[in-house]
Amino acid sequence: MLIHAAPAVGRAIDLPKPYLLFVGDARSAGFAKTAFGLKDWAAESCVGECASSPEAVSTGLPRMSPREAQARGAKSIVIGVAAVGGAIALGWLPVLIEALEAGLDIVSGMHSRLEDVPALEAAVERTGRQFFDVRRPPPDIPVASGRRRSGKRLLTVGTDCALGKKYTALSLSRAFAARRIDVQFRATGQTGIMIAGGGIPIDAVIGDFAAGAAEILSPDADDAHWDIIEGQGSLFHPAYAGVSLALLHGSQPDVIVLCHEPARTHVIGYPDYALPTVEAAIGLNLTLGARTNSAIRCAGVSVNTSGMAESEAAAVIGELERTLRLPVADPIRGGEPLQRLVDACLDRPASPSGREAR
Amino acid sequence: MLIHAAPAVGRAIDLPKPYLLFVGDARSAGFAKTAFGLKDWAAESCVGECASSPEAVSTGLPRMSPREAQARGAKSIVIGVAAVGGAIALGWLPVLIEALEAGLDIVSGMHSRLEDVPALEAAVERTGRQFFDVRRPPPDIPVASGRRRSGKRLLTVGTDCALGKKYTALSLSRAFAARRIDVQFRATGQTGIMIAGGGIPIDAVIGDFAAGAAEILSPDADDAHWDIIEGQGSLFHPAYAGVSLALLHGSQPDVIVLCHEPARTHVIGYPDYALPTVEAAIGLNLTLGARTNSAIRCAGVSVNTSGMAESEAAAVIGELERTLRLPVADPIRGGEPLQRLVDACLDRPASPSGREAR
Repeated sequence: MLIHAAPAVGRAIDLPKPYLLFVGDARSAGFAKTAFGLKDWAAESCVGECASSPEAVSTGLPRMSPREAQARGAKSIVIGVAAVGGAIALGWLPVLIEALEAGLDIVSGMHSRLEDVPALEAAVERTGRQFFDVRRPPPDIPVASGRRRSGKRLLTVGTDCALGKKYTALSLSRAFAARRIDVQFRATGQTGIMIAGGGIPIDAVIGDFAAGAAEILSPDADDAHWDIIEGQGSLFHPAYAGVSLALLHGSQPDVIVLCHEPARTHVIGYPDYALPTVEAAIGLNLTLGARTNSAIRCAGVSVNTSGMAESEAAAVIGELERTLRLPVADPIRGGEPLQRLVDACLDRPASPSGREAR
Repeated sequence: MLIHAAPAVGRAIDLPKPYLLFVGDARSAGFAKTAFGLKDWAAESCVGECASSPEAVSTGLPRMSPREAQARGAKSIVIGVAAVGGAIALGWLPVLIEALEAGLDIVSGMHSRLEDVPALEAAVERTGRQFFDVRRPPPDIPVASGRRRSGKRLLTVGTDCALGKKYTALSLSRAFAARRIDVQFRATGQTGIMIAGGGIPIDAVIGDFAAGAAEILSPDADDAHWDIIEGQGSLFHPAYAGVSLALLHGSQPDVIVLCHEPARTHVIGYPDYALPTVEAAIGLNLTLGARTNSAIRCAGVSVNTSGMAESEAAAVIGELERTLRLPVADPIRGGEPLQRLVDACLDRPASPSGREAR
């Protein structure tokens, strides 16, 4: 380890927008989740879609060739389709090469690397375009400095992986923006990075630099500006807690929102690891987060009630609110509970200690 | 992040021993710290030393040519000298190439990569030898499984970086061995890896795999076997806490020994970050460590009293022992306090909860 903090020199990934969404030969939305996610959350950054097969599923955006998209302002084509094993399908190559020749860069979050496909690599060299791999961290990430930054920050944290931290951060960002608050969604995973048009895949960063990555992801900002940062993993996860702690320390959040799935009893994929209680998860995040921001507080809880009937979800939410005395909302259901959660995020701390949930 | 744990396929670095120590042209021990560290801690693994200048400092081991060393059983030459900027000095090349030609591999912890030196790269290809870079993690490190492993584990943890976690782990390993206990020192940093002849540079591992690296570093073992694992960083460090947490979770220690430097008031290089108290550091390590090993306990404290007079050190140690009601020792001073710390490490927990320091 380096003992002295290096100056912050690195920068987050910055993708060329707007996008042309590539749905490949996907026969259903399930195989083109990324394209559908972008259409849902970043429609203003998408000029249209294109496919490698006329029978491919449609996101509902206008279908066009790469050249048409370029004429309408597109800067890159995003691979929004998944193939078996995370590989790049041969049938996609003609469209991808056509896109490079039309002047578009290629954005990918696939497991396979674009530069390992000789035909694509040759086309990139011929056209002078670029590949953007949202799985790969940017270079020159510094060691964290621990310095407090200006502006306000919210981090979504969780009792586990894969229960709605990205969705919650996006929903809160949209709700903040609807109130005309200066807000930016800060992405830490590949889908989020495509939606945001930038970010850092925090779990792919070398351990010594992970907190530093979180620092450069949400730089100094105006006092009234909010960064809403996509959380990753959980402090209770036997494999990923280190990433979650680095993200918590480097993000220096003023506010956390805990994400939870009431129906889940164990860490996903780890049957020997019971999920922590909501109270324990809030407490540990506040205890550890206070190391880099002593004013950290928990605004409330985002619950994932998918699969529950409306009445069951309402009962779960009501029960949690009574126990925790904090706002609880399912952002997918939205409505008044979500607005109360947003109110709590924006409230100044009620007491000088700044911790509502302790 | 991957949701399901992959099977453990990776293996820790395994260096070819015994070594020939290379002191290069170092004029003083300060420029050959690695060579002197290896002579102090791994003398049984060193057949001798060689130099690129007759005026170079000596570790006290017999000086010999690479060919002589090979004849005496050496398997690799270890670069035990540091050059300005971490680079490989031109003057070293003839000896290093001679070593490759004599059938030795080269072990390096330098910042520069050996394969970036064309003359060395060519000699490696010609001779069929190998480079071993102890700064680079091994391939195929799995995601942590969280599965409890057999055997016993001790992890040195700290209130900060650079205050004796490696030295404490080595001292305890030596003290355990002196009592004829089956013990292995498990290294997580470059110097430690050279001393141990293997290990994983944990802070260079990608975040998602850091706890998995700690798991494969100390695999299943006999019930009576102890792994003593070199700690890294601190849970209170604004840049490195994530690495420390991953190491704590993946190591699943039965016992921790907290390392502390009483004279230090702030995190080294971070004047805005006060050091935690010893009590707080023990408490947080036990709280977080209990996630993967509910029987975790703190055996005692290792203090770094370098620079203190004998009487001052004794006073500091006595005061800490009274406050904590735990054994406290400076392993450099050794003696009876160190033996009491070893006793406490080996004791079975006094109560079924297994936690002495709570």
